[in-house]
Amino acid sequence: MQNNKVNPSTLSGFMELMPSEQKVFNKIEKTLKEVYELYGFYPLDTPILEKSEVLLAKAGGETEKQIYRFFKGDTDITMRFDLTVPLAKYVAKNYNNLVFPFKRYQIGKVYRGERAQKGRYREFYQADIDIIGDGELNIINDAEIPSVIYNVFTRLGLNDFTIRINNRKILNGFFSMLNLEEKTVDVMRIIDKIEKISYDEFIKELKKIDVTDEQCEEILKFIKIEGNSEEILESLKAFSGKNEVFDQGLKELELVYKYVADFNVPKENYKIDLSIARGLDYYTGTVYETTFNQHPEIGSVCSGGRYDNLAEYYTEKKLPGVGISIGLTRLFFILNDNNYLNSKDSSPADVLIVPMTEDLSYAINISTKLREEGIKTQIYFENKKIKNKVSYANRTKIPFVLFLGEDEININKVTIKNLESGKQETIELSGAIKIIQDCVRVLSNEKIVNIGTKN
Amino acid sequence: MQNNKVNPSTLSGFMELMPSEQKVFNKIEKTLKEVYELYGFYPLDTPILEKSEVLLAKAGGETEKQIYRFFKGDTDITMRFDLTVPLAKYVAKNYNNLVFPFKRYQIGKVYRGERAQKGRYREFYQADIDIIGDGELNIINDAEIPSVIYNVFTRLGLNDFTIRINNRKILNGFFSMLNLEEKTVDVMRIIDKIEKISYDEFIKELKKIDVTDEQCEEILKFIKIEGNSEEILESLKAFSGKNEVFDQGLKELELVYKYVADFNVPKENYKIDLSIARGLDYYTGTVYETTFNQHPEIGSVCSGGRYDNLAEYYTEKKLPGVGISIGLTRLFFILNDNNYLNSKDSSPADVLIVPMTEDLSYAINISTKLREEGIKTQIYFENKKIKNKVSYANRTKIPFVLFLGEDEININKVTIKNLESGKQETIELSGAIKIIQDCVRVLSNEKIVNIGTKN
Repeated sequence: MQNNKVNPSTLSGFMELMPSEQKVFNKIEKTLKEVYELYGFYPLDTPILEKSEVLLAKAGGETEKQIYRFFKGDTDITMRFDLTVPLAKYVAKNYNNLVFPFKRYQIGKVYRGERAQKGRYREFYQADIDIIGDGELNIINDAEIPSVIYNVFTRLGLNDFTIRINNRKILNGFFSMLNLEEKTVDVMRIIDKIEKISYDEFIKELKKIDVTDEQCEEILKFIKIEGNSEEILESLKAFSGKNEVFDQGLKELELVYKYVADFNVPKENYKIDLSIARGLDYYTGTVYETTFNQHPEIGSVCSGGRYDNLAEYYTEKKLPGVGISIGLTRLFFILNDNNYLNSKDSSPADVLIVPMTEDLSYAINISTKLREEGIKTQIYFENKKIKNKVSYANRTKIPFVLFLGEDEININKVTIKNLESGKQETIELSGAIKIIQDCVRVLSNEKIVNIGTKN
Repeated sequence: MQNNKVNPSTLSGFMELMPSEQKVFNKIEKTLKEVYELYGFYPLDTPILEKSEVLLAKAGGETEKQIYRFFKGDTDITMRFDLTVPLAKYVAKNYNNLVFPFKRYQIGKVYRGERAQKGRYREFYQADIDIIGDGELNIINDAEIPSVIYNVFTRLGLNDFTIRINNRKILNGFFSMLNLEEKTVDVMRIIDKIEKISYDEFIKELKKIDVTDEQCEEILKFIKIEGNSEEILESLKAFSGKNEVFDQGLKELELVYKYVADFNVPKENYKIDLSIARGLDYYTGTVYETTFNQHPEIGSVCSGGRYDNLAEYYTEKKLPGVGISIGLTRLFFILNDNNYLNSKDSSPADVLIVPMTEDLSYAINISTKLREEGIKTQIYFENKKIKNKVSYANRTKIPFVLFLGEDEININKVTIKNLESGKQETIELSGAIKIIQDCVRVLSNEKIVNIGTKN
């Protein structure tokens, strides 16, 4: 990099993948899209830049520090730091032209100027779904969300995960019973940290906001209620009739729990967990977190919940909703870092045509026929030795090579080589097409994530 | 928007689509991706933010004014204004780990602070493909590019377009014959404008840089050489032997022209056009523009060409390449604005389940079965009148409604209604699945663009 050349570096904290990694990333993204669309969510694509007054209508001090904000001429601009605030703006802005419940997904980059560290990115993808009601939104929608999460992860090849469900009204109601109404937000925030901090720290934090010893004990006893989900629901009934909000929350949680089963989510993949609180004061009912059972240290990979009012900073309309967000970049990083990603299906093409004659018409003709059959086809045009041409296929993991020389042209056939098995044969093009398509079908059905069988 | 509410507005010059428009936009994007991948291009996704010293290693004054540039802490950051400079950085940075020829596509947003006007956006998608060689790159690659363009547009439903091909070496060589070597860049820039300005303005511009009357006449005569592509190539042979660069260019153009035909691109969709120059001094050989025959006023919707050295600002390695760019946002705007987009396939789901009982288990059960068959399914959960539920399907253009009441549950059937025909029948679920799948297949095979049959 001497001689006045600029060092071709990428900003710290910005993920930039190698081509074969990008193929796998895109396959994950595609899976998310497909599942989201199966549930009838509309795609949405809002701008990455918004007016600062719009994006920061709500934001507190913490967010302010992390954002990318700048002036272009006289315009005060902020890069979006999540996909929820732009959604709120969008729904408020287009309220009269949307059909409610409005179901949308958005997979897009967001920006936060966090301290750069391993697995933390400043530019990262979020993959959100939300269902927005006009005035009200049936609680059953909250039962559909875990079904979406379940489908996303199992289709990716992940099975050993737990969707943990709670309802904030239960916590709020319970805190009221303890006369902690005014400290609800803070207590919720501390409970949200329970898996990350020690028991002593937990108590210390509660003490800091003047929670008494007795209250501490009650809180701990409550969020640690033991048993499976049915048993927890049974235990909660003991608190019924003392607080309306609690009763409402319990009714909602029972309903959600019942219908999640109807959505065919296996019992081992979801459970009621009273310690799930979510840090944001935004949530008002059902809350979700999703953890990989073998990797509790990662924390939640898919979180969300129910909120009463999406767009209160922009409109008088009451717009309740429920949604979740998957941190796609972080998820990819975790899976990649743990060698869980199946890279078998990461080649740019299904077949590489290697012409062996000077005139390329035959090779080009074959390429068109292959592409018409949906086969991803490259022709190697460069003047290199055969060895180098085949090496191109090997290095990019293209599974097949078609050799096209005088012999093949004369008998109107192709010589196909399977690079994995080494098997080579000279056959009709139609036969080669079948061989390639069969292989592609197997490859594309491979799960993206291979936990347990690292490769 | 009284009472301290923030006006939920979007920045001027930033496209934000309605949900059904977004569906159509995504279908176009998907078509581009599919075609690019059929040709073996890797996907790539570089950051939207880069160090200013990297992005502006080359840039001239014009670009500087248009860019979004800001400081975050001490870091001088610029938002990418195209996808070519990030590619150059990427290839230089990862040179040792890439396999050449490196074929990549990237579809992503870029940012230019241009004056806002109809059809001009400050945030817009480009959809680029490039083939990068290491040291050299066979000219036949230049013949593959028009085949990609042809496939993209015809798959979208566009047929009446022309890919116009030229070779800058021919123009350069010809200018040398006229002793205009030193004015080549300027003359090229003026020729690039020929379709946008009048004859008089064209001459005036040439005069401004001291091109003589005689030279003007020769230039005009040259770029207006008449006839079909074969005749133009024939006419060009008259200039052979006078200038090496010209001869090289003619040889290349002949070869490209020959092989484009082998790629099965119909003669009516491409032609040699000596007035195609491209404004950027970046291009060194083959150049392309693509125009809609019925809409010459739009100018080129897909342009590109061959360049000698992709990453000269970052590396000593010589990296020649060839590529094109489609201005996806602009293309969408044009098609939408002209009512050319087919919005038949813009619903969020294939079927809406309308439960008619209080218990929703049956409906949820059916939804799972439909989704397992790949059918995009929504359940209407809200407590509204039947009329409102069906209206939801009508307004979002969901083609089918499934009514599930006590009767259906008792006989284990479904009542399916085709909203377009109004036909309603009570049948087995398997029958309904077939009906829906058949309809979806037809809809998804509809071309996205419907020129001539406006709707």
